[in-house]
Amino acid sequence: MTQPTSYRLTGTCPDRVGIVARIAGFIAELGGSIISANQYEDTETEMFYMRYVVGAEPLGMDADAFRAAFEPVARELDMTWSLRSSDCPQRVVLMASRQDHCLADLLHLRRSGDLVFDPVCVISNHDDLRDLAEWHGVPYHHVPVPKVGEGKQQAFETTSALIREAAPDTIVLARYMQILPPWLCAEYPNRIINIHHSFLPSFAGARPYHQAFRRGVKLTGATCHYVTEELDAGPIIDQDVIRIRHHDSIDELVRRGKDVEKRVLARGLRYHLEDRVLVQGNKTVVFS
Amino acid sequence: MTQPTSYRLTGTCPDRVGIVARIAGFIAELGGSIISANQYEDTETEMFYMRYVVGAEPLGMDADAFRAAFEPVARELDMTWSLRSSDCPQRVVLMASRQDHCLADLLHLRRSGDLVFDPVCVISNHDDLRDLAEWHGVPYHHVPVPKVGEGKQQAFETTSALIREAAPDTIVLARYMQILPPWLCAEYPNRIINIHHSFLPSFAGARPYHQAFRRGVKLTGATCHYVTEELDAGPIIDQDVIRIRHHDSIDELVRRGKDVEKRVLARGLRYHLEDRVLVQGNKTVVFS
Amino acid sequence: MTQPTSYRLTGTCPDRVGIVARIAGFIAELGGSIISANQYEDTETEMFYMRYVVGAEPLGMDADAFRAAFEPVARELDMTWSLRSSDCPQRVVLMASRQDHCLADLLHLRRSGDLVFDPVCVISNHDDLRDLAEWHGVPYHHVPVPKVGEGKQQAFETTSALIREAAPDTIVLARYMQILPPWLCAEYPNRIINIHHSFLPSFAGARPYHQAFRRGVKLTGATCHYVTEELDAGPIIDQDVIRIRHHDSIDELVRRGKDVEKRVLARGLRYHLEDRVLVQGNKTVVFS
Amino acid sequence: MTQPTSYRLTGTCPDRVGIVARIAGFIAELGGSIISANQYEDTETEMFYMRYVVGAEPLGMDADAFRAAFEPVARELDMTWSLRSSDCPQRVVLMASRQDHCLADLLHLRRSGDLVFDPVCVISNHDDLRDLAEWHGVPYHHVPVPKVGEGKQQAFETTSALIREAAPDTIVLARYMQILPPWLCAEYPNRIINIHHSFLPSFAGARPYHQAFRRGVKLTGATCHYVTEELDAGPIIDQDVIRIRHHDSIDELVRRGKDVEKRVLARGLRYHLEDRVLVQGNKTVVFS
Repeated sequence: MTQPTSYRLTGTCPDRVGIVARIAGFIAELGGSIISANQYEDTETEMFYMRYVVGAEPLGMDADAFRAAFEPVARELDMTWSLRSSDCPQRVVLMASRQDHCLADLLHLRRSGDLVFDPVCVISNHDDLRDLAEWHGVPYHHVPVPKVGEGKQQAFETTSALIREAAPDTIVLARYMQILPPWLCAEYPNRIINIHHSFLPSFAGARPYHQAFRRGVKLTGATCHYVTEELDAGPIIDQDVIRIRHHDSIDELVRRGKDVEKRVLARGLRYHLEDRVLVQGNKTVVFS
Repeated sequence: MTQPTSYRLTGTCPDRVGIVARIAGFIAELGGSIISANQYEDTETEMFYMRYVVGAEPLGMDADAFRAAFEPVARELDMTWSLRSSDCPQRVVLMASRQDHCLADLLHLRRSGDLVFDPVCVISNHDDLRDLAEWHGVPYHHVPVPKVGEGKQQAFETTSALIREAAPDTIVLARYMQILPPWLCAEYPNRIINIHHSFLPSFAGARPYHQAFRRGVKLTGATCHYVTEELDAGPIIDQDVIRIRHHDSIDELVRRGKDVEKRVLARGLRYHLEDRVLVQGNKTVVFS
Repeated sequence: MTQPTSYRLTGTCPDRVGIVARIAGFIAELGGSIISANQYEDTETEMFYMRYVVGAEPLGMDADAFRAAFEPVARELDMTWSLRSSDCPQRVVLMASRQDHCLADLLHLRRSGDLVFDPVCVISNHDDLRDLAEWHGVPYHHVPVPKVGEGKQQAFETTSALIREAAPDTIVLARYMQILPPWLCAEYPNRIINIHHSFLPSFAGARPYHQAFRRGVKLTGATCHYVTEELDAGPIIDQDVIRIRHHDSIDELVRRGKDVEKRVLARGLRYHLEDRVLVQGNKTVVFS
Repeated sequence: MTQPTSYRLTGTCPDRVGIVARIAGFIAELGGSIISANQYEDTETEMFYMRYVVGAEPLGMDADAFRAAFEPVARELDMTWSLRSSDCPQRVVLMASRQDHCLADLLHLRRSGDLVFDPVCVISNHDDLRDLAEWHGVPYHHVPVPKVGEGKQQAFETTSALIREAAPDTIVLARYMQILPPWLCAEYPNRIINIHHSFLPSFAGARPYHQAFRRGVKLTGATCHYVTEELDAGPIIDQDVIRIRHHDSIDELVRRGKDVEKRVLARGLRYHLEDRVLVQGNKTVVFS
């Protein structure tokens, strides 16, 4: 099912009368067909958020020409914006540790064409998942991370260098069990996606299934969010939960949790890859 | 929480380049602020569906003036449309039989202001729910419906006369256990809303919980749909399910089903009352 | 659907070999038919939890005789236990403030026979819901609670006296917006049920919808739990969530939250009324 | 997380007073510790269903000795029963066509130890998934199935021979897009598990997503069931649904449906592998 090429135009600007008319008018003047249009006016902050998908064919211009044409409109509206062509899949660096459920799911979704991205490489602090990555034809970098000290700092510098070389659009922490140092997080704002194995803000930090077990909650969940310098506190992209029962052991929580983790990460990453997520302070607008 | 008045403009027309620009341009020219905008282009039928909510205050015209101003635009676009002011709640006739769960829920939601409509009257083939309706200050008409024959036809003529007199925008079958005759359905196309106690198209017709029990399904559900002449086959507005287990008896299915019935009916009716539902052949576009 | 009388025998004791055999053997010796049997062995604490429902008729003894017969078995097993006859509905005191959604739902479920309890009275710090309670034939006590000081202490003493007079099995805080003083909580351990309008432990305390809105979560929920002296920290009986979107305002969260609040409270209360909940430290075993 | 060995004793017999006492007494006499016990009395058919998990260690006998000891008890109760040791994973034949989502998920769950079975071989009517199977170390048989005629009959005979040679406990149709001939279904009653890509009984047969799209349902689902000679009509093990919207194309339904298909198949298969499913006519008792 090859889709015809389309351009995804996303943007944020101060709200005022006439924005939709201006955007839609601009597209209509070029003869462009709107495949889908979403907008959201946040009445509290008086900001406007939008996502337009425009067919490339009737438009008859490439992405750069479309960008150049839109630039004056964006300036006029004081808009922060971006435009991505549907035929340029994002470059993604995947980071994992020992557990394979998230990595395996993402790589399989990509292999079957159900999730479109270019997996530049896998970086892991263990060597366990090399076979999996390499079977999918994805280069694998093993960067062990010592528990403390200078070695740890060095490991993250190596990691950082590998990421820089990969030049990714997006970095996915697919159950990478290390906390990235703040300076590394700061280099990729709203571009590092993490899956946390609890329903945030409940049970942030370490061993959330143990915390959930101790508290005796009746649902447990997973949260896909952008990574910021504060642990497990970045903008949330998606969440989901599963029902648990008194007889579920911690091992059972862990096992059942994997299912919701991989599902929420795949869904959140899809929103991100399709440019459906706009960050609004510490929250997200998701045009799902 | 009184909301400021707004106008809901909904419409359907053949799809073509420039519709959004035309609509949004028209609103911007009048200085109108768009509170929310939804559109959908159906690529299969090449039809365009939209819902715009426009603040009444900056617009500075009443609903009729706005209608008059929009009329030429609609003609130009060959659009079937309607405009409703948020301060004109729909007139609703509620029909019920003996079970009170749906009727009680709708009347309570309306009483607390969580669902906005004007309950003109309740019509029932039994007298059981008179107290409930009258406590909410809603007139109650008891129209017994014989099982067969001329009396049955007469009952529906009486019902029809009561409805005509009530001049409703919408008729809600809140577990009204009678099948309306086709001629009565035909008088109110896409204006009669039914709650069916199964996940349609599974278990249409009589005694769906018994059917579900016999088949041994693991989920049961409810469906809110517009009534057409063909039984349980009209456009679906909303559906939901609940999980059932092998030890649930039919009585238990009935009891647990009531919860999902009232929830789905309230949600579907809300979409309808807020002009979020556009009928597309035998399907619905729901801007939720 | 009148059910034949049955006895619900629930108990907790240290785990060891042969408990089920002892219990089931005891029932079989009396010729009793087991309608349903649940047990749970907690391997961590080495405690055993059970719920047996036994038909009264083949047994041919009343509840007191059955209690007397079971007493030696319980002593032998070092079991904390209780036995309730299905034809003795629990006496319930309902407490509410201004919002009617939970109270209305519980009273309607009871009226239609879908939730079986004896509503002894409603106690409220406002007079708003008197009509609702009285229409259901339930006495209503209005006990205003000042914000601070001696008057507040006095109000809770009045409340406590009213409760004592009502001699309830269970007290339900159906969105009663006051924090009960610890001495009052301590009088009714595992017998006061609260509905908190968040997915605990997220957003405990005041204004959880505002907290959820600020954090930008993608699901919000409700939690039904036993009240302990520590606010919103007692054993959880049931929880559920609903999906929210970026365009949901706080008012919208409040409105949509009501639906999940009333649903979770009704479900949690049902489990409690049917003796399906056994408290295990700060957690619950729920034989649902 | 290696679990200590346990025996799962499942059985069905006519209901009568004293069964639980007899079973639990038998286990207690042997000094066995009950890890979990489930029973269900079907009042309509007056049949009794049970599943006991008994620790192997305190029992001090192997599975065969336990079987021999239980045999007289079973005879006395007129019970159809089976006993499986937790350290004897079931032999499973997996059948697939071209789509890899279910097969990949099952093989990954097995690889990570989250689903315990012995994948004897994969049989497919296409050669596409050979790499996947062989990477997991599972033999792959490519048996093309012509659309009609003698070749088709022959293909199923080859398939049948391969299955017989594999001597499986269970056969899983992991989106195997062929209809098995009745004679082949009849050879493995309640041992062939299929995943159907709709919420049965809605949309049985071919192209369920197309059927769902045409009908305009608001939820779509998947059903895991035992295969019988009648297409898509066997006993249902598990079902689940996902919400769909008016703008979801058929391709989108197919893509989103894969997620619920793999989830429901994995869950249903787990119940089966853990001996949690007892067939009751055309329904199932699932001790989940």
